[in-house]
Amino acid sequence: MRVTGSKAKVLLIGKTNYTPTFTCDNTSVRSDLAALVHDALANRKLVTRKNHLHQSLQNIASSISGPVAPSFQQLGALPRSLNLPSTVVPSPAAMSMQKRDFSQSSNKSLNINNINPHVKEAKYAVRGELAIKSEQYRAQLAKGEGKDLPFDSVISANIGNPQQLDQKPITFFRQVASLVENPQLLEHGEVLKNGLGYKSDVVERAKALLKDVKSVGAYSQSQGAPRIRQSVADFIERRDGFPADPQNIYLCGGASAGVNALMSVICASPNTGVLVPIPQYPLYTATLSLLNAQVVPYYLKEEDGWSTDVNDMRSALKEAQNKGIDVRAVVVINPGNPTGGSLEAQHIESVLELVAEEKLVMLADEVYQTNVFEGEFQSFKKILRQLQKGDKNKDGKFDNVELASLHSISKGMVGECGHRGGYYEMIGFDPEVVAQIYKFVSIMLCPPVVGQCLVELMVNPPKEGEPSYPQYKEEYDTIFNNLKARAHALYNAFREMEGVECQYPQGSMYLYPTIKLPQKAIDAAKKENKNPDDYYCLRLLDATGICIVPGSGFGQREGSLHFRTTFLAPGTDWVSRISDFHKSFMNEFK
Amino acid sequence: MRVTGSKAKVLLIGKTNYTPTFTCDNTSVRSDLAALVHDALANRKLVTRKNHLHQSLQNIASSISGPVAPSFQQLGALPRSLNLPSTVVPSPAAMSMQKRDFSQSSNKSLNINNINPHVKEAKYAVRGELAIKSEQYRAQLAKGEGKDLPFDSVISANIGNPQQLDQKPITFFRQVASLVENPQLLEHGEVLKNGLGYKSDVVERAKALLKDVKSVGAYSQSQGAPRIRQSVADFIERRDGFPADPQNIYLCGGASAGVNALMSVICASPNTGVLVPIPQYPLYTATLSLLNAQVVPYYLKEEDGWSTDVNDMRSALKEAQNKGIDVRAVVVINPGNPTGGSLEAQHIESVLELVAEEKLVMLADEVYQTNVFEGEFQSFKKILRQLQKGDKNKDGKFDNVELASLHSISKGMVGECGHRGGYYEMIGFDPEVVAQIYKFVSIMLCPPVVGQCLVELMVNPPKEGEPSYPQYKEEYDTIFNNLKARAHALYNAFREMEGVECQYPQGSMYLYPTIKLPQKAIDAAKKENKNPDDYYCLRLLDATGICIVPGSGFGQREGSLHFRTTFLAPGTDWVSRISDFHKSFMNEFK
Repeated sequence: MRVTGSKAKVLLIGKTNYTPTFTCDNTSVRSDLAALVHDALANRKLVTRKNHLHQSLQNIASSISGPVAPSFQQLGALPRSLNLPSTVVPSPAAMSMQKRDFSQSSNKSLNINNINPHVKEAKYAVRGELAIKSEQYRAQLAKGEGKDLPFDSVISANIGNPQQLDQKPITFFRQVASLVENPQLLEHGEVLKNGLGYKSDVVERAKALLKDVKSVGAYSQSQGAPRIRQSVADFIERRDGFPADPQNIYLCGGASAGVNALMSVICASPNTGVLVPIPQYPLYTATLSLLNAQVVPYYLKEEDGWSTDVNDMRSALKEAQNKGIDVRAVVVINPGNPTGGSLEAQHIESVLELVAEEKLVMLADEVYQTNVFEGEFQSFKKILRQLQKGDKNKDGKFDNVELASLHSISKGMVGECGHRGGYYEMIGFDPEVVAQIYKFVSIMLCPPVVGQCLVELMVNPPKEGEPSYPQYKEEYDTIFNNLKARAHALYNAFREMEGVECQYPQGSMYLYPTIKLPQKAIDAAKKENKNPDDYYCLRLLDATGICIVPGSGFGQREGSLHFRTTFLAPGTDWVSRISDFHKSFMNEFK
Repeated sequence: MRVTGSKAKVLLIGKTNYTPTFTCDNTSVRSDLAALVHDALANRKLVTRKNHLHQSLQNIASSISGPVAPSFQQLGALPRSLNLPSTVVPSPAAMSMQKRDFSQSSNKSLNINNINPHVKEAKYAVRGELAIKSEQYRAQLAKGEGKDLPFDSVISANIGNPQQLDQKPITFFRQVASLVENPQLLEHGEVLKNGLGYKSDVVERAKALLKDVKSVGAYSQSQGAPRIRQSVADFIERRDGFPADPQNIYLCGGASAGVNALMSVICASPNTGVLVPIPQYPLYTATLSLLNAQVVPYYLKEEDGWSTDVNDMRSALKEAQNKGIDVRAVVVINPGNPTGGSLEAQHIESVLELVAEEKLVMLADEVYQTNVFEGEFQSFKKILRQLQKGDKNKDGKFDNVELASLHSISKGMVGECGHRGGYYEMIGFDPEVVAQIYKFVSIMLCPPVVGQCLVELMVNPPKEGEPSYPQYKEEYDTIFNNLKARAHALYNAFREMEGVECQYPQGSMYLYPTIKLPQKAIDAAKKENKNPDDYYCLRLLDATGICIVPGSGFGQREGSLHFRTTFLAPGTDWVSRISDFHKSFMNEFK
């Protein structure tokens, strides 16, 4: 190694700034040392130890002769600056320490190069480029400016938004909601008389809810209103046959808010890892990006109806652990999004065995628990309680499992996503950790209170014999049967399409077929700098007005291609639009 | 420096693990090097450069003789471990890299020592210990078990939750809400007939809102429904006399969610700083803790009605900059929480001058804009537009100011906090940055849609001549006048209390008096390991059932003591409860 003139300057943070100047010809050493110092500086804790750090660097400097010769200059209270050789790729944190560059982006304080890098990294394709383009088409058509378009309507099959399509809200739910919104209607008793369709159980329920929350315009407890949580606990007990404690129930503004709270507490450092299924709902990868934690992907078994494969899970876990990643949790989405799969008890059991052995936190996303078309929904809670009581628990290994399971009013036959309601139950969590989750959610005050009321209605709907039951039952069953029928219609259409293979629809609101595209189509995509599945979906949108989401938004095995579509849109016309497009697309690239 | 036997072992992350062993007698050098390497490892980006890093460390090792002698051992794929000399205080990130300690906290995967340290650091006293204790008292009284308590009701003066106290919702708002919840009511036309109190403008508004959102149970655009945003823009234009663009309006689930989105994008590293007033609403410090960014405190001028002091702001800024903190934004809460102050145009002007000169992002929390009892509310937007048009902008320095201003349905005469609605307007932001904010909010899908509707109703209430106007006007004015009257009653009571000084009530929902406690009271607090203000508030709660928040929850000048109380509770009985308690407390410690 020889001394040369090239320099890497780094200023230390503190009242006084120092420049350790590494002067050497070994770019790798120089840049790595610079990066090391950067990363240290990016960490506030070390800043407070500036004097130590400075002393250490001086000591190192004085002990090194010739080959690598840092020198230190005291610069006084100058503004910090950072000049690194071009080979240095500082970390995002270090990047942001550079004096903000006002030359770009028209002199703004914030620009794309200096904002939170973890926000930039986060990907959320469900509402991405294609969705935005489809909204533009919709606006164009609404203005009557779409005469040149090859379609006359936009079909949003990209997002599970039932009431934006044809799903009608359940009457009982909305009648109660209207009364808690306007309790003056309860004062008269008129609502029961004059043909407005309200029945006595609607009035009673509204009164009971108002007794709990006082007003839907008031903040509730951060964790959610107490009697609503009790109602959720009763529902879980009926569903699983095992008791549930309302203290363990946290209401939230949709399952997304619950996932955010749980992940925010779990992810302690950039080294925290969470096992996430591939394919997955991108909330998980996006949240982990925002929290600067690591996605540890495991693959679902497509050929087996997208079931979990505990062997693949285990090897993904081991591989990550060998890399030093602190894997802390496993996400399972059941029924599956985007896959449309539904797990059997045995699959859940093996996941819980892994979780117990490896001391992982189990995150069970069960928001599609009523969208099950084959067999019966099995909750993680029920299977866990069975395991805890059974022979396999001789050594007590299941006793300490930490399970959080999420449910939502957005899906199922409820479909009230605009109301932002949901809950999670935490089982086996350390009370001190729960207290931190409580504090975390209290910073955002409380979940929307009407959403909380709808959670109560979802888990405690009219019962047989009650006045609103017949209508509730009829509406619920109709929605269920329509969803199932459309799932099958779509599935059958996919089976007819060349190069498309689709798993049998078992649950949730989606199908996730695999597509094999001709090489010429793949080449055409490459030419436009797009993934082949992105290209396919974009062409479909441009040709038919149907918006679906490419597999790249959810993850897929290297070399395979998929797309996700909901089966919420009414009618079957749009299904044949897809078939026709597919035929002509395949012909074009034959 | 002499070689000794003490060692600091650090394993590098990668398929293969390495132990660089620094063997030297200088603890400071050794521990700082170890910490440097830790912090580097804690950064995912560097992990991918393992080979470079390892090579560099080997190069450094081979170039250092005697004094500091790292040696490297290849360990293969062993589990990572970390043995540091006790003098090393690793960063939280580095801490979490230790193998999780299952010996504590009853064998749980997650415990208080390994969860996200930034969640642990966050403080949110408004819903803290005192609030929880007051809820316990309330539950005790409700069960009839409170006979031994020295009070018969709990007064929640700790939180601005109008409808939990006596504020009635505004009828027009809730009538419209009931119709968007149950559009079946619109089909009959019956609602207008039979004495339910609905007027034609209620029906029209509900229809217009449903045209925009289709169903309140459907997800809206992530940014909020388009016509509601247009309505917000129209309101801002009427308020300020300057145009507003609905593209710049983002609806959100209460202002807290807006602050979270904005801060999440602004805070790029642990070195990012945000100027926050002291005292402040703890949402700001809590959010900055969660994001691992730095609070740069500036003090409000209590003696001047809690106005901003741009000199103090500037010196806080310079001091932080000298420490190398990348200060990016200023928060101003106007009208003030917890202070009850209200800024004059001149104060806002000087803040904007500072912001323009220093290229900071201006975050104006204006959720109390209608709670102004003295003078008129001045928005940051209006003053900024005036400055941009005026003489002071000859050099164009105001042209590029980035301003985000927040408003909410939770406060004012609306008081619909349980509905979680609000908006922020972003002015002067770089479009690429706005796109990232859009992506960020889209991960949580959309704000509650009924809350969005209430935002529309708030910014576009019944106008003179419309059927619902007289009732709306009467309800609105009554709430306003009651709030003002109670503010003054409380202010007058405080003026009579020994050792209490209170600024004249100008705005918001709070008073934040300063209290001087006798030394004996301070000693008594110390004995119980409490801050004197915490002790005072706890004693007040135990004696009277009134829950207020100690100044320590908001920040106060060293040595001063305060508390925050809302003036939302009905009646004046509770005010005299405070006076009586204060008298006996002061006597006790005389």
